[in-house]
Amino acid sequence: MELLLALDFVNVDEAQSILRELRDCIDIVEVGTPFIVKEGLRAVTTIKREFPGLRVMADLKIMDAGEYETRAAVGAGADIVTVLGVAHNETIRAAVAAARELSGSIMVDMIGVREASRRAREIDGLGADFLCVHTAADLRGGGQNPLDELRRIKESVHRARLAVAGGITLDSLEGIADLAPDIVIVGGGITGQRDRRKAAVELSRFVRGGER
Amino acid sequence: MELLLALDFVNVDEAQSILRELRDCIDIVEVGTPFIVKEGLRAVTTIKREFPGLRVMADLKIMDAGEYETRAAVGAGADIVTVLGVAHNETIRAAVAAARELSGSIMVDMIGVREASRRAREIDGLGADFLCVHTAADLRGGGQNPLDELRRIKESVHRARLAVAGGITLDSLEGIADLAPDIVIVGGGITGQRDRRKAAVELSRFVRGGER
Repeated sequence: MELLLALDFVNVDEAQSILRELRDCIDIVEVGTPFIVKEGLRAVTTIKREFPGLRVMADLKIMDAGEYETRAAVGAGADIVTVLGVAHNETIRAAVAAARELSGSIMVDMIGVREASRRAREIDGLGADFLCVHTAADLRGGGQNPLDELRRIKESVHRARLAVAGGITLDSLEGIADLAPDIVIVGGGITGQRDRRKAAVELSRFVRGGER
Repeated sequence: MELLLALDFVNVDEAQSILRELRDCIDIVEVGTPFIVKEGLRAVTTIKREFPGLRVMADLKIMDAGEYETRAAVGAGADIVTVLGVAHNETIRAAVAAARELSGSIMVDMIGVREASRRAREIDGLGADFLCVHTAADLRGGGQNPLDELRRIKESVHRARLAVAGGITLDSLEGIADLAPDIVIVGGGITGQRDRRKAAVELSRFVRGGER
């Protein structure tokens, strides 16, 4: 498993400072949707330039214009670009084709998808590199977590690798790790902790441990 | 009816130059998703500052973190912020509440929504200011247009005002105008024309004519 750190509510300076502190603990850094909205794709470019050893994911949550937006993000330095699972198949297909041409990858975010198992199978067939099981931030008060959906989707998907996101902390990681997703996405579980270095080290040990 | 000009594939300089030429023809300018992704919300701020007489719509297509993203966009100068109709109700509700507090408006974009009439009724009940019937750019090769869906949704929605988007040109406007949506969204139908001033004047006359 690999550890992805999602940076959502920061500007470029704050992101650089967090990454200087935590770069050795993580495999991938996500420039989150609110971060891109605030700063634009220059955030991706700046981070990729300073941290070439990290893969960078641009969380565009593409809903339309799949080719154009994927080209823009990969051109700015992104290794992985996200597309919404609720987008039309044409959009997912166009994003996958553009990413492939530019040696990037597409992660399809299953947030808001109904009939997730059926749709996951379909998206797997469209050539997505990753599928991300994702409990919306706006739902987290309700005690929802991505564990059950991850279990169901794991049975439906044979080609794409799996990622999981949505309020994950060290405490909630155990059940998830049993299902061995390829990427574990953590945001506030690291950046929201009093000692974020400690949280990152512990999560890193747990997530990457299985591979070592 | 009002005319909204969508600016998608431009940078800030190009947008300013287009708006200096066309400001008198339009009511609202949209900072499109790819434009925001490229430049960040500073695009909204710059445009609102130079063109205070135009309302500015930030096409964030919010899918999660409804309150945070709405606050960021309205704080940057947006009058209207878009949220996806495929988002969870919690996200739409949070965006509507934040917009209301800040005297902004929410437009819910129906792109990718299944069972559009039923969902439109539901979103109308969530307090969205506008509902936008929207044929995805990635579907336009297939001859799809937003006319039939606009007709169906018009019957389902009683509170929210209606907008329509998706490849609209002067030629395709006539059928749409019969249904009298509150806002007609045009992008390439103006910016992609050889004489964009002429296209904007003609569309403006047609769209705004009914009110004068």
